Amino acid sequence: MKMFADCIPCFMNQALTASRMATDDSSVHDRTLRMAAAALAETDSTMTPPAMAQMIHRIIRTESGVADPYAEVKERFNAFALELYPELKRMVAESSDPFETAVRLAIAGNIIDFGASNHLRDEAVTIAIRESLQCDLDHGTLTAMREEIAAAETILYLCDNTGEIVFDRVLIEELPLERVTAVVRGAPIINDATMADAKNVGLTDLVRVIDNGTDAPGTILKQCDAELRSLFDAADVIIAKGQGNYETLSDVPRPIYHVLRIKCPVIARDVGCDVGSSLVTLRA
Amino acid sequence: MKMFADCIPCFMNQALTASRMATDDSSVHDRTLRMAAAALAETDSTMTPPAMAQMIHRIIRTESGVADPYAEVKERFNAFALELYPELKRMVAESSDPFETAVRLAIAGNIIDFGASNHLRDEAVTIAIRESLQCDLDHGTLTAMREEIAAAETILYLCDNTGEIVFDRVLIEELPLERVTAVVRGAPIINDATMADAKNVGLTDLVRVIDNGTDAPGTILKQCDAELRSLFDAADVIIAKGQGNYETLSDVPRPIYHVLRIKCPVIARDVGCDVGSSLVTLRA
Repeated sequence: MKMFADCIPCFMNQALTASRMATDDSSVHDRTLRMAAAALAETDSTMTPPAMAQMIHRIIRTESGVADPYAEVKERFNAFALELYPELKRMVAESSDPFETAVRLAIAGNIIDFGASNHLRDEAVTIAIRESLQCDLDHGTLTAMREEIAAAETILYLCDNTGEIVFDRVLIEELPLERVTAVVRGAPIINDATMADAKNVGLTDLVRVIDNGTDAPGTILKQCDAELRSLFDAADVIIAKGQGNYETLSDVPRPIYHVLRIKCPVIARDVGCDVGSSLVTLRA
Repeated sequence: MKMFADCIPCFMNQALTASRMATDDSSVHDRTLRMAAAALAETDSTMTPPAMAQMIHRIIRTESGVADPYAEVKERFNAFALELYPELKRMVAESSDPFETAVRLAIAGNIIDFGASNHLRDEAVTIAIRESLQCDLDHGTLTAMREEIAAAETILYLCDNTGEIVFDRVLIEELPLERVTAVVRGAPIINDATMADAKNVGLTDLVRVIDNGTDAPGTILKQCDAELRSLFDAADVIIAKGQGNYETLSDVPRPIYHVLRIKCPVIARDVGCDVGSSLVTLRA
């Protein structure tokens, strides 16, 4: 998905918020905002929003000297989601359709996205779980996904954010574990999950986890490690979590199951649904 | 008042909104946003927010080819305020303190500011009137202002926005009319009042009205006509309406009565009050 004009003010807001998370020094905020504006002025509309985010957050990290402004937020939401984990597992176990329930919970976990909003409260996660368990999902897509997973020899699961990765673990535990490779980001970017988070939430004890080698909040294939690219080409099923993976992969000519919550009007317009929608969709 | 980092994302939002008001052509929005970003990248923190706004809105007008994107909004709020005018006059006439009531109404009218918000509904004006009539005001400043006005030979009244200018008329009608010069902007900028609006709401039939010769949404003295500058230097009392006049004049070493509603957190911080406050304050 290409960027829209709306993305530019949104990234300027994100630059200010992240810069303030990194430092109290207002001269750093001023410099960062102007460098971000200069960088955005040079973009063109063929860029994806995560490519812009990558550029902006590199400026934020360099100017503040803080390698991971979201470290505390990430820690907090991993811990919060791990506390929820037994309850999530109980919901799946008691469900008449554990796979579908796990998909719905994975969508709910996608609310934990500090790219889309910087003011997330724990209650929002609880509300997202309730909404996601009750909302309409495309049952044709769910059935196809279930059947393809059953027949697949290799499943690539592209993770998204911290906290959310605990919800992904719940879904991954409903998949044939030995055939799954989970993918995290290669370096800190917004509140996206990295290898440290995969270890923290126990995902590395369950399935093979690799990182994609990049600091983009999505999957920009041409930037990714050769290993990821060949897994991507060869996988029988690809499950991509969240907006960042959708934005970077929606135009890739390859069947991908996108599992996400729609949090921004630009993606809502691209997908053709409302902000707040829960979605399982196959793009090919 | 100098700009803060917060102003940069805010102006990018304003650029997008105004550009969309001017045209449906998304290529114009894209180009405008990138040019605005480039211009903001070159600013420094000694600029006032209205100087930045002037720069951004020149880009919007040039790129869209629309000389006044806010023309319809301005027309609508002038008409709406003119409908309210008899009721505003009744409130003043029935008040135990007509001057204070007129000041309070002038503050209420300052809610009609499309620089601070682009989603203003008629109800917001009615609510602002109620709040402004009931809120605490600095009675020491009000008394000093009243006494200085009584003794003044020349009073300069710097207007702000369309719609609001009807509320200003109500306050101006409580002043010694023959000693008042009202000032409007020299050219269309956001929803600020120009000479056409002063005529439209009947202000030109009451007092002398001049324009300041600029398209800044404030009073940037060094850009203003010589006539305004000499009136500014010589006036016994200056009343400045709204945020734009505050931002451009708060550091000028000259006593000025600022009459406004605080609509943005940056000005709230500078003034030392909450967003939503009604204010009569003397800066010198």
